[in-house]
Amino acid sequence: MKVVALSGGVGGARFVHGLAQVLSPDELTVIVNTGDDFEHWGLWISPDLDTVMYSLAGLGDEVQGWGRKDESFVTLEELRRLGAPAWFRLGDRDLSTHLFRTMRLREGASLTEVTTSLCRSNGVGPTVLPMCDAPRPTRLDVPGLGVLDFQSWLVTHRGPAPTAVLLGSPAPEPSPAVREAIEGCDLVLIGPSNPYVSIDPITTLPGLTDLLQARPVVAVSPLIGGRAVKGPLAEMMPSLSGRQAGNEAIASHYRAFLRALVVAPGEAVPGLVCLETNTLMRDLDDRRRLAEETLRFAVQT
Amino acid sequence: MKVVALSGGVGGARFVHGLAQVLSPDELTVIVNTGDDFEHWGLWISPDLDTVMYSLAGLGDEVQGWGRKDESFVTLEELRRLGAPAWFRLGDRDLSTHLFRTMRLREGASLTEVTTSLCRSNGVGPTVLPMCDAPRPTRLDVPGLGVLDFQSWLVTHRGPAPTAVLLGSPAPEPSPAVREAIEGCDLVLIGPSNPYVSIDPITTLPGLTDLLQARPVVAVSPLIGGRAVKGPLAEMMPSLSGRQAGNEAIASHYRAFLRALVVAPGEAVPGLVCLETNTLMRDLDDRRRLAEETLRFAVQT
Repeated sequence: MKVVALSGGVGGARFVHGLAQVLSPDELTVIVNTGDDFEHWGLWISPDLDTVMYSLAGLGDEVQGWGRKDESFVTLEELRRLGAPAWFRLGDRDLSTHLFRTMRLREGASLTEVTTSLCRSNGVGPTVLPMCDAPRPTRLDVPGLGVLDFQSWLVTHRGPAPTAVLLGSPAPEPSPAVREAIEGCDLVLIGPSNPYVSIDPITTLPGLTDLLQARPVVAVSPLIGGRAVKGPLAEMMPSLSGRQAGNEAIASHYRAFLRALVVAPGEAVPGLVCLETNTLMRDLDDRRRLAEETLRFAVQT
Repeated sequence: MKVVALSGGVGGARFVHGLAQVLSPDELTVIVNTGDDFEHWGLWISPDLDTVMYSLAGLGDEVQGWGRKDESFVTLEELRRLGAPAWFRLGDRDLSTHLFRTMRLREGASLTEVTTSLCRSNGVGPTVLPMCDAPRPTRLDVPGLGVLDFQSWLVTHRGPAPTAVLLGSPAPEPSPAVREAIEGCDLVLIGPSNPYVSIDPITTLPGLTDLLQARPVVAVSPLIGGRAVKGPLAEMMPSLSGRQAGNEAIASHYRAFLRALVVAPGEAVPGLVCLETNTLMRDLDDRRRLAEETLRFAVQT
């Protein structure tokens, strides 16, 4: 079975990690949002790609959900002393990824090629693909603050509710590898990621909605009891969807291609095929169980 | 008194550190070779500038003579694992300097401006100037190896005797600050650096020999008993100068502008005003003493 998972950062990465426990490496391809990518200290940072890669490699900081475990911050503290911006906490281990990526990109490699190389060096089995090779920066329009870059919105301002999410436009083409993965798969799973800032940047790439409509697509809701496990999704939903935060709004948002939804117990959406199960992933057992249940449900649906 | 010191890396940096113990910050300007500068991991590295800056800041690794003291190599070891070149040992503390410099250069700052900013943040009192703002890479022609980049020659091949030192050509203009410093000084001191690869890149910049001829110039010989304290100078001299390694060859090399030379006991050059003293700098007391003696000698000469 060939499975494609669409993923943002923390929640999506945890779900993908679970899928990697259940599927063999050649059965799983992860397509990752790069709308959060940005340049910092002259380096090209791809936060969601790295979170997925570190999770799959077992190198991630599982407590904070991003960055490397057993991390140190020697260079960061020195750069702070030199007057460089220190609001984005890049650790010494993590820094090697950004240096390597930036160096290879400047040498002419594509982001897809660099990601493949990094994943191979880190012992990642499944295929991890950036959604596209060209930058597609997401920005957010926030009342009183204006249009913010993604990291400024999320890290500096802590994710205030926006009136609009501005996906990079014109949208670049998805990479050939992304198209081929979706065309050749039996199932598309959307991880419990933020639909607006993690999944939309992927699904709105030229041609992708059409490709997704031709495949069985099952999503795991990022909401439990109307709240996101992590991040400002619930606060974003009323102004962006005109609805209260909840699975109805999630299902409606994905309605162009969604076949079924995995939700927390008692939170099924009327009129939509749903699997009710514990969607909170506190540890690796939770990840594996949710992946297994989601796969079994998706195949039967 | 306004003193300008010309310096390469280790030996020159030690001498300049001694000068900084004797002169007030506004009396000392150091003009530093940038012929060794190179790009590594996508970062702009200025080894001699950093060695001088770290020495003056008290941050340098005094045992190996370059890099930061109390250094760690977390990012380097990670990059090695990722397949990046690891032959140039950039430490985590040191890395902050290269990241900051590269970032500021890409933003449009000049190397002179970046150096001033780094020195200020590191608490360096004297003025430290790169010899020029444009790159001027030194290369070396070595029998059997061909023309090598400087770091490839020094680090990878450990400094084999070259038949020619190829200074970057056409030479860029020295920075205005470099011209002004020499024009406005009372004395020029050349530290115990390698004349071919550390001092020539500076003195052969357009107009500098003329400026130096109009000033009293005193050099400290980098040789003791015909050997360099550090580096491959002695091995380079026969093929480059046609003479045995020694102070006669040093004096001859600098003859266009040299007024006097500081040498080890018993190693004076006939026909040239020389100060014979202990030129080996093992500790800070040695540096201060050599600086004091050289200044006293130079003023009297």
